[in-house]
Amino acid sequence: MLRYLTAGESHGPALTAIIEGLPSNLPLDLEFINHQLWRRQQGYGRGGRMKIESDRVEILSGVRFDKTMGTPVAMTIQNKDWRNWSEKMAITGQAPSSVVEITKPRPGHADLAGALKYNQEDIRNVLERASARNTATMVAVGSVARLLLRHFGIEVYGHVVELGSVRVEKFEGTIAEIAERAERSEVRVADPEVEKRIIEQIDAAKAAGDTLGGVFEIIVTGAPIGLGSYSHPDRKLDGRLAQALMSIQAIKGVEIGIGFDAARTPGSHVHDEIGYSQGAYQRRTNHAGGLEGGVTNGQPVVVRAAMKPIPTLYKPLESVDMRTKEPYRATIERSDVCAVPAAAVVGEAMVAWTIGQSFLEKFGGDSIEEIERNYKSYLQAIGER
Amino acid sequence: MLRYLTAGESHGPALTAIIEGLPSNLPLDLEFINHQLWRRQQGYGRGGRMKIESDRVEILSGVRFDKTMGTPVAMTIQNKDWRNWSEKMAITGQAPSSVVEITKPRPGHADLAGALKYNQEDIRNVLERASARNTATMVAVGSVARLLLRHFGIEVYGHVVELGSVRVEKFEGTIAEIAERAERSEVRVADPEVEKRIIEQIDAAKAAGDTLGGVFEIIVTGAPIGLGSYSHPDRKLDGRLAQALMSIQAIKGVEIGIGFDAARTPGSHVHDEIGYSQGAYQRRTNHAGGLEGGVTNGQPVVVRAAMKPIPTLYKPLESVDMRTKEPYRATIERSDVCAVPAAAVVGEAMVAWTIGQSFLEKFGGDSIEEIERNYKSYLQAIGER
Amino acid sequence: MLRYLTAGESHGPALTAIIEGLPSNLPLDLEFINHQLWRRQQGYGRGGRMKIESDRVEILSGVRFDKTMGTPVAMTIQNKDWRNWSEKMAITGQAPSSVVEITKPRPGHADLAGALKYNQEDIRNVLERASARNTATMVAVGSVARLLLRHFGIEVYGHVVELGSVRVEKFEGTIAEIAERAERSEVRVADPEVEKRIIEQIDAAKAAGDTLGGVFEIIVTGAPIGLGSYSHPDRKLDGRLAQALMSIQAIKGVEIGIGFDAARTPGSHVHDEIGYSQGAYQRRTNHAGGLEGGVTNGQPVVVRAAMKPIPTLYKPLESVDMRTKEPYRATIERSDVCAVPAAAVVGEAMVAWTIGQSFLEKFGGDSIEEIERNYKSYLQAIGER
Amino acid sequence: MLRYLTAGESHGPALTAIIEGLPSNLPLDLEFINHQLWRRQQGYGRGGRMKIESDRVEILSGVRFDKTMGTPVAMTIQNKDWRNWSEKMAITGQAPSSVVEITKPRPGHADLAGALKYNQEDIRNVLERASARNTATMVAVGSVARLLLRHFGIEVYGHVVELGSVRVEKFEGTIAEIAERAERSEVRVADPEVEKRIIEQIDAAKAAGDTLGGVFEIIVTGAPIGLGSYSHPDRKLDGRLAQALMSIQAIKGVEIGIGFDAARTPGSHVHDEIGYSQGAYQRRTNHAGGLEGGVTNGQPVVVRAAMKPIPTLYKPLESVDMRTKEPYRATIERSDVCAVPAAAVVGEAMVAWTIGQSFLEKFGGDSIEEIERNYKSYLQAIGER
Repeated sequence: MLRYLTAGESHGPALTAIIEGLPSNLPLDLEFINHQLWRRQQGYGRGGRMKIESDRVEILSGVRFDKTMGTPVAMTIQNKDWRNWSEKMAITGQAPSSVVEITKPRPGHADLAGALKYNQEDIRNVLERASARNTATMVAVGSVARLLLRHFGIEVYGHVVELGSVRVEKFEGTIAEIAERAERSEVRVADPEVEKRIIEQIDAAKAAGDTLGGVFEIIVTGAPIGLGSYSHPDRKLDGRLAQALMSIQAIKGVEIGIGFDAARTPGSHVHDEIGYSQGAYQRRTNHAGGLEGGVTNGQPVVVRAAMKPIPTLYKPLESVDMRTKEPYRATIERSDVCAVPAAAVVGEAMVAWTIGQSFLEKFGGDSIEEIERNYKSYLQAIGER
Repeated sequence: MLRYLTAGESHGPALTAIIEGLPSNLPLDLEFINHQLWRRQQGYGRGGRMKIESDRVEILSGVRFDKTMGTPVAMTIQNKDWRNWSEKMAITGQAPSSVVEITKPRPGHADLAGALKYNQEDIRNVLERASARNTATMVAVGSVARLLLRHFGIEVYGHVVELGSVRVEKFEGTIAEIAERAERSEVRVADPEVEKRIIEQIDAAKAAGDTLGGVFEIIVTGAPIGLGSYSHPDRKLDGRLAQALMSIQAIKGVEIGIGFDAARTPGSHVHDEIGYSQGAYQRRTNHAGGLEGGVTNGQPVVVRAAMKPIPTLYKPLESVDMRTKEPYRATIERSDVCAVPAAAVVGEAMVAWTIGQSFLEKFGGDSIEEIERNYKSYLQAIGER
Repeated sequence: MLRYLTAGESHGPALTAIIEGLPSNLPLDLEFINHQLWRRQQGYGRGGRMKIESDRVEILSGVRFDKTMGTPVAMTIQNKDWRNWSEKMAITGQAPSSVVEITKPRPGHADLAGALKYNQEDIRNVLERASARNTATMVAVGSVARLLLRHFGIEVYGHVVELGSVRVEKFEGTIAEIAERAERSEVRVADPEVEKRIIEQIDAAKAAGDTLGGVFEIIVTGAPIGLGSYSHPDRKLDGRLAQALMSIQAIKGVEIGIGFDAARTPGSHVHDEIGYSQGAYQRRTNHAGGLEGGVTNGQPVVVRAAMKPIPTLYKPLESVDMRTKEPYRATIERSDVCAVPAAAVVGEAMVAWTIGQSFLEKFGGDSIEEIERNYKSYLQAIGER
Repeated sequence: MLRYLTAGESHGPALTAIIEGLPSNLPLDLEFINHQLWRRQQGYGRGGRMKIESDRVEILSGVRFDKTMGTPVAMTIQNKDWRNWSEKMAITGQAPSSVVEITKPRPGHADLAGALKYNQEDIRNVLERASARNTATMVAVGSVARLLLRHFGIEVYGHVVELGSVRVEKFEGTIAEIAERAERSEVRVADPEVEKRIIEQIDAAKAAGDTLGGVFEIIVTGAPIGLGSYSHPDRKLDGRLAQALMSIQAIKGVEIGIGFDAARTPGSHVHDEIGYSQGAYQRRTNHAGGLEGGVTNGQPVVVRAAMKPIPTLYKPLESVDMRTKEPYRATIERSDVCAVPAAAVVGEAMVAWTIGQSFLEKFGGDSIEEIERNYKSYLQAIGER
């Protein structure tokens, strides 16, 4: 069982993650992981903070000479700005008198519910962990799963398909082309025409002091038939993917394959007919997004997630002070307009993690060599049917 | 920790469920559970099978004199049609020569992937468990959670908001009104005008040999502030709800609050501003669907799920025989046109289960009396802030 | 992940178990399981109840034509005496006036703590589930794991090595001989001389109105090198075995290999030196009981558990009535003198379950055929080192 | 649900732990944790390494101004000797030519099984994680649970009751006296007479190049009635304690209360009779070690664990080289003679963790204040019965 825990406050000294259950002898490319962290920090329409940071992961255990040992992998990401926060976020000692408690909950955040649930006077104790900053560890953790999948020819791609009111209509191109173009785009959009309109829209939102959400799509290629199971509800891979994506900050919707459109289309046009040629089962369509009955069916896994706009606006929202119960309208100094391209990178990570988990559940094995043997013999066995 | 396991094949002797982790002294209204099972079997556009069945749960343990004992609750639902299946689905003994193996996988089902994954020659061994028949145990299990929630004033309602191409536009009415009207509707739709159009559409699909999907909405009222957590990704209640709903057969999309529309709306119109009056925090809107940062915020929890059309069509889909690799087009004798109203009942159950789980995690307690004390003192404490 | 839930009150209508996570195509020999249930009911010194019962498991799902389908296996064991209890233990309806509440907690049972924890006036609501009767489902569940292990040449044997003050000294014989002799013994003791003394001791205890405990040993042969892991504390197989055995009713101690004697012996005489001959690593001794660092090392796994004497004595123990706080001394009608031979059968089941779980974790696989491939290729790979 | 993961190699840059599920507002005394780490490093008969190290935990998250925030707590323990190992244990880069692979598995360690399981040529990749060095994180993690328990008046004490062939006979004294005397003893033994004989025995073993094991006892005072449950086997607190202790390196036996002696004593002398005086249920004896039916009964929880002697001997054991299959006898430079006093500190930590987990399961709550309310109202409710 592959599992992880993460820890860390947005302005604390460091973020930490531990992954347990990795096989041994997996080449662990640190630069690959750092590159994913870098990708999370990109995107047109980001504010100042992304420039302060330049996240790099430090591995503290579980890896020797670039290979996993089958033992837990611990990773930290230092907060480059910690010297400016070491008083306000001090682990030990009394709160210095200079610390100003945050008592005004922001709409669209965990602030109000968190302060009540955890009985906190200072909302900072809520927002520091609820912050999207913590998606950095999700990316670190998911990137390790991605290296595992890549070893077996499974790749995970993410691209933005909607941003605000602009939508990518059916893009003509292979998955590889989509991935390659999205990678070059500042907004992670494959279609250059749409990209242009999206950037204009971000500029307009910025000028208006507003923010934008959007939808990203994750595509997994190379996943074998048979990941996930219909045996019990909590084994269904579609359910697990939905949880993984919906647990990312600001995600409010998830769909698989054609998703909500499946609900609006007659059955005769929804299901992917099955053919057989060149020694393998074939589909002309992939409306199911690679998942039937909670199990991968050999087609690319396709999932989409809807991200709400960032709730920290220049045009501030109404709230109340929890101490005085007086209404207020916060003024803020800086904010991102849009974080959808970055969220797509987080989405890739969470999907990779979930697929990686189900992959190890199916193929077992303690070393990469053992998994390779198990994997090959399974592919051979089902290839003969 | 509240947990369950279910078991059962669609045409096996019985379905079984065990729930572990319930508090003691919860009044367990068997008729309530059976009523939920009955509700799952209703809905305009169902075919023949729903009439054969008339599910009733039998409780085998964990309850004495109508109250839980704090011990595991086992439930079975007998298959009323078992005498017609006892040979074909015999648990013991050799397969009788009369058994015809199913070798033609149906598109849109787990058939093909399941047969390969579990190395089955007879696809019946796949479809029997992957069948939507097994949502009956989900309803049984969820109904127990619902009784727990109801004890604490938390109610769960489901209604259909889209069916095929027809959509319920903003319905003016209280949640109680929606619930009450949907309950009286054959298609679980609150708006009588829309209901009429939906029934016409079902009739048309039936005539065309086609099937329809749709979208249902689940509303939870009375949930306290503070269920779920942002502390770790797998604690987020939105993620857990997404998993619970996406794990229901045929669900391809899940959204919370305004969901995908949040992605298409500027930030200034998405977030629910916070007010304070009459001694409590207030919201004028509930676009977040009662969840901010993965935590309930005191507003009704609102989630929606998209169901694809039933894949068993009179107008058959193309597939191949796994033995001969010859193409075929199945002819079928009967089918439902639409199962969305029934799926809404399953959705209620899965949402109730998930909320019930997070409720017990937060409030602990081994007996209903202990939970009542814990719950009241929490409500009082946060009421003072 | 192999998992199970059990349910059932001692005098309820039936005991229930669900196993989830079994591979498909495992031959499931129902008579083998029933034979294990029968073995649990044997043993010199048992009182009347064992004769009333003659447990038989009924499988409700997960199996077709004697083979698993990869879906959850549900099993029930009917209470043959239910007609005498259907009023006193009625699931629904008001408590009949004839029901006498139990208010006197028995020392050595969960009675007092359970009544307070679960807020029960009637201690019957505690003792019904805490009863050793429920080890029947443990045996049913463990026997399924045993069939899985047996398929891969792994066998589990149990025998009694101490009973009251009598101890089996070093028995000269192979494991097969121990198993075979213990199987024929009424007290599950391999050494006929010791057996005789044990039976005399049981007779004496019976005459004195007293009860006896003892120690049983479980031996697992054929387990491959590499089950369990040192990677994380909760993965250590020795810890999991300890939990499995200590969770059986009345068990108060567990040891692995020479166990407590290891603490009393100098290091130079404790550890099992490693040799190599005939193409394999060899040990002359097995003081470690087949487990080093929480991992199987290829030697037989040997664990022992200490069972306290049955706390229901003819010579009653002092307690108080929870209502009146008056002291009392219960008189009882019948009791077993000793249940150690039966507990050994439960111990076999729990050890088989735990080994089976770790076996599937290591070898993955959804069908027996897939596991066979994975298993063979692993054995071959480590055989070459 | 309270959970943790640890990571770290013995000679890696640092050990890491993450704890998730702690309530907010728990005062987190860092010096208390560091003191526990220091205690783990003490004990007569330790070799050189303990002096190199002087473990100190660094908290990276979850705590602000000395109080938990309800978010995950990450801790690291730096390896003070890392500069001497940074080449041999380098995370990244090729193995330098100076690295000598370990190919000779040591009896009594995970070496042989681990090298085969994880397909490692260099046994260092096994021993680094399997090492008892990693009990440092267990102590760190358990010490946090201990602070939680202490907040509710629950204390955990450990002392050595056997070492090699010397045994502490019934020590006359209160638990507080035992704890206080053991704390002052170099071998963590309460009885000064026995302590003397134990030290002599350690000296003799050292002179002989041998090692010694022993037995330690953990006592928990102040635990309320009702932790753990008989509802399901995996909820039984005795089973969980057994797993926690057996998962500590070198532990081969666990017993609760009088443990194995219970098996050897007639029932009339084993069970703890129940009385009532001064408004509370009373016991004159505590043979059950505070646990009946897997549930705490209000008496001190008493568990004991048997530790085998350290397998690294000056008098080396026979093994083979895995490459050449040639026999060899290792010579070693230094070793501890006995680690039982240190293991007792690890035992305290693991017991504290397990009790802490079951405490939070029962009392729920997100903040210390909420748990206090729940706890008090429960104590009051059961106090009235």
